[in-house]
Amino acid sequence: MNVKNHQVAVFALGGMGEIGKNMYVVQYQDEIIIIDAGVKFPEDELLGIDLVIPDYTYLMKNVDKIKGLFITHGHLDHIGGIPYLLRQINIPIYGGKITLGLIRNQLEEHGLLREAELNEIAEEEVVKFNKTSISFFRTTHSIPDSYGIVVNTPPGNIVHTGDFKFDFTPVGDPANLTKMAKIGEEGVLCLLSDSTNSEMPGFTMSERKVGESIDHIFQNAEGRIIFATFASNIYRLQQAVEAAVKDGRKVAVFGRSMERAVELALDLRYINVPKDTFIDSSQINKISSERVVILCTGSQGEPMAALSRIAHGRHRQIQIIPGDTVVISASPIPGNTLSVNKIINQLYRVGAEVIHGPLNDIHTSGHGGQEEQKLMLRLIKPKYFLPIHGEYRMLKHHVQLAQNCGIVEGNCFILDNGEVLALDKNEASLVGKVPSGSVNVDGSGIGDIGNIVIRDRRILSEEGLVVVVVTLNMKEFKVVAGPDIISRGFVYMRESGDLINEAQKRLTDHLNELMVRKTTQWSEIKNEISELLGPFLYAETKRKPMILPIIMEV
Amino acid sequence: MNVKNHQVAVFALGGMGEIGKNMYVVQYQDEIIIIDAGVKFPEDELLGIDLVIPDYTYLMKNVDKIKGLFITHGHLDHIGGIPYLLRQINIPIYGGKITLGLIRNQLEEHGLLREAELNEIAEEEVVKFNKTSISFFRTTHSIPDSYGIVVNTPPGNIVHTGDFKFDFTPVGDPANLTKMAKIGEEGVLCLLSDSTNSEMPGFTMSERKVGESIDHIFQNAEGRIIFATFASNIYRLQQAVEAAVKDGRKVAVFGRSMERAVELALDLRYINVPKDTFIDSSQINKISSERVVILCTGSQGEPMAALSRIAHGRHRQIQIIPGDTVVISASPIPGNTLSVNKIINQLYRVGAEVIHGPLNDIHTSGHGGQEEQKLMLRLIKPKYFLPIHGEYRMLKHHVQLAQNCGIVEGNCFILDNGEVLALDKNEASLVGKVPSGSVNVDGSGIGDIGNIVIRDRRILSEEGLVVVVVTLNMKEFKVVAGPDIISRGFVYMRESGDLINEAQKRLTDHLNELMVRKTTQWSEIKNEISELLGPFLYAETKRKPMILPIIMEV
Repeated sequence: MNVKNHQVAVFALGGMGEIGKNMYVVQYQDEIIIIDAGVKFPEDELLGIDLVIPDYTYLMKNVDKIKGLFITHGHLDHIGGIPYLLRQINIPIYGGKITLGLIRNQLEEHGLLREAELNEIAEEEVVKFNKTSISFFRTTHSIPDSYGIVVNTPPGNIVHTGDFKFDFTPVGDPANLTKMAKIGEEGVLCLLSDSTNSEMPGFTMSERKVGESIDHIFQNAEGRIIFATFASNIYRLQQAVEAAVKDGRKVAVFGRSMERAVELALDLRYINVPKDTFIDSSQINKISSERVVILCTGSQGEPMAALSRIAHGRHRQIQIIPGDTVVISASPIPGNTLSVNKIINQLYRVGAEVIHGPLNDIHTSGHGGQEEQKLMLRLIKPKYFLPIHGEYRMLKHHVQLAQNCGIVEGNCFILDNGEVLALDKNEASLVGKVPSGSVNVDGSGIGDIGNIVIRDRRILSEEGLVVVVVTLNMKEFKVVAGPDIISRGFVYMRESGDLINEAQKRLTDHLNELMVRKTTQWSEIKNEISELLGPFLYAETKRKPMILPIIMEV
Repeated sequence: MNVKNHQVAVFALGGMGEIGKNMYVVQYQDEIIIIDAGVKFPEDELLGIDLVIPDYTYLMKNVDKIKGLFITHGHLDHIGGIPYLLRQINIPIYGGKITLGLIRNQLEEHGLLREAELNEIAEEEVVKFNKTSISFFRTTHSIPDSYGIVVNTPPGNIVHTGDFKFDFTPVGDPANLTKMAKIGEEGVLCLLSDSTNSEMPGFTMSERKVGESIDHIFQNAEGRIIFATFASNIYRLQQAVEAAVKDGRKVAVFGRSMERAVELALDLRYINVPKDTFIDSSQINKISSERVVILCTGSQGEPMAALSRIAHGRHRQIQIIPGDTVVISASPIPGNTLSVNKIINQLYRVGAEVIHGPLNDIHTSGHGGQEEQKLMLRLIKPKYFLPIHGEYRMLKHHVQLAQNCGIVEGNCFILDNGEVLALDKNEASLVGKVPSGSVNVDGSGIGDIGNIVIRDRRILSEEGLVVVVVTLNMKEFKVVAGPDIISRGFVYMRESGDLINEAQKRLTDHLNELMVRKTTQWSEIKNEISELLGPFLYAETKRKPMILPIIMEV
């Protein structure tokens, strides 16, 4: 990358053209500031990948230049990569109070807490390095302590909004409009702004309105409330717990991440309720139904989370009883629509009332709509504009909004992950690429599930597998055992005897022929097996299973 | 099933608790009337199932009683099963004009057209059998010739709505409210009514409004229009073609199902435009962009359909050029959200403008909302009510609406597929079950992909596979070749040499030990292989691949 000495470089290792694994880099000369280190959950749950992180190559090669990792807020798509990053390079981390609490929980799980250097920041602080300095401005989002970040560099200020909406009646602290206006007034070289809802006209509904709906539901429910939401949506937990107290209900918490989130929120006093509000899970059957709230995980239909287990009768402590009201206080992300749908149907089947969906005002986005994005643009008044945190269509629409707000067309850039923008007061241009990409995490392996493995899983899942094994004596040119055919995920073998027998017969004849011809090249024999079997099976079944020929030699 | 002689039996072989594979049965004594024969598309595209049909066992066992198959309208979830059904039993089919046209196309593809007995019906006809007779009433839906069906039986009239909305300003003929009122007036024993939108308040937007949006978009687009919708949505095709004519554009049609649908609509005069409106695909680059409409398939993100190929630059004749406007005139069904999303992003990337989604009023549902369902209930005034065509939650909400409209709670029934309701004027009750279920169609196989194969495909897709092959000489108790380890979808073998070597070493030692112990039971040896390898691989990788031990004997 060809950045001049008087320029500042801005790029993303994740978050451009996608929702997830956010990681942005601002570099001035030998000072690198990283903003966020998130994970992304794979869209396709079937292929067994647990999560995806960015390629950290550039950071590993430039570790001596890194000044710090600054975290905008505590959601997994912004902090989930930290344990994987810290395993490679130990760098100081900066974040708000609850952000650090959530990072600590995570590092503890990975056994990495002791080495980590965590620095708590408050809005008024300024973190100074040799050439750059970092300051913060409070925003509103679906979690407390969400900050926008200003990276002050000699060529100018780079502003990163973090995830934001403008909730004028928030549950926690309001956004610091005054400070944003001041930042804008002082001059901003480039704005990196959250694009999630750039296709949504208007303003996002206030979290306060959700609180009213929760109150209403709790007061009208005659039995237990089972309330499922994101554990990380601390405001939502707070509102649910407060509604429970108002309605004279006790709260039992289920699901490990939910327990930890509630604990943290109580520790940090984001939830302030009488001590006896929370009851142990063993107590819920001892008090009457209309006095119970069950707060649980699983609002995205995750099969192992509490809500799914409750719906399917697989939960150790909770079964649906008549009169139960299940509140799903979340929107399914697109990949989870079907799973959530199944759980809702199942809950109805077992007799629960289910309240979910936009009609009931029990969820709102954490991201601002078009008017909020325009408000940010008008407050910050940047010279250059980089939409971030969004799929391509969202980045594209966000650029349109920026141009409507007076940013010159040529000063708006849509980058891919890895593409480097070099800026100064007079010009901005793309100057190259740093390594970037997706690294799959599956089980304990990081990056060992590559494209070939994924491709194989896809074929296996769609067409199944046919294994052909044959043992050959290559000296006497004889088939000494087999060919045996074993299949998985292709046809049910016990009911496909004729097909398998015919295939075996054809293979035997052909292998004997190959032996007569004294063919000894394994690769050739394997090829011959595949080329005989593939077309035969396709003709008979119209399917193309993966064919795996195995040759044993005695 | 224990239906008394004076009772009529009503049940579904598909369509209860699901969207898809609709098939309803009304039986009075020895007369069976079948309504619809649909398919369902699997939610999970990965597991390779092409489509799902109902279990036809009951019909095959009672073929002598079947009087006819009556089709409400020509959508695949109502007609797609016909070729599979006709392969088993040849029965007369009744349907409206375009419905039969679409069925003919389908039967032709399956080479079954010659034997089929197809009877075209019009609204005023009555089809009479010995004890039962069938009449029809016109409804509005997203395809012409949609009918509700009245099965007149001695115990009373059974009314099936088909799919419907009440579009008071339809593109085709209006619903016959007068006839519905008369049917209600004469007395209805049981109503089976479409539940799709029972969770949607209000009225569904008129198709006419979509037409206005299409006009507006066509008039404002400065380049080509690429218009993607369901081929079966004849009204939408009609409106798109008419808008093209109004705006002085020519229409080129892409995608096989779209070509056939347009041809049929022209033949049957549902589309009436000047002859030179349609141009050959080779012509589109010869006239100027603002005079071109490309009508194509792929509105659900299907990877092989025209729109996806255009977006990804894989279409032989169409590449996106600057100024192109792509209109996606459809809503993605939940399982397709991600694929449609990917296509939209890709279209933006290659420079197209994309118009889609509810904000643009370019799509409306074919199914009525709550007020329309209530209107149907008030017109038909049934004694008993059976919500059909919906997931459990939709059936449940529909029952609530019926009760609001005065149907007695005990007279509403939510059935599972196969559950039989026996009715007469005085009572209705569940009297048993007929065989029902899902039959998978994959390639040319019908029903040969059962649960075991699906389970295997799922494991393979999430964890991959490890094959262990060993050739044994069972007389001399010697390992003569192997053990060899081959994996697919597990780890990339070239980069996992250490893991595989260590596993192989452990297996070799253990197999030698088994030979010393003179173990000759294959099942025991296979077990030992799995039990050694499984825990070892899990400890090393935290993954649980399918392990497939294969023993060859010489």
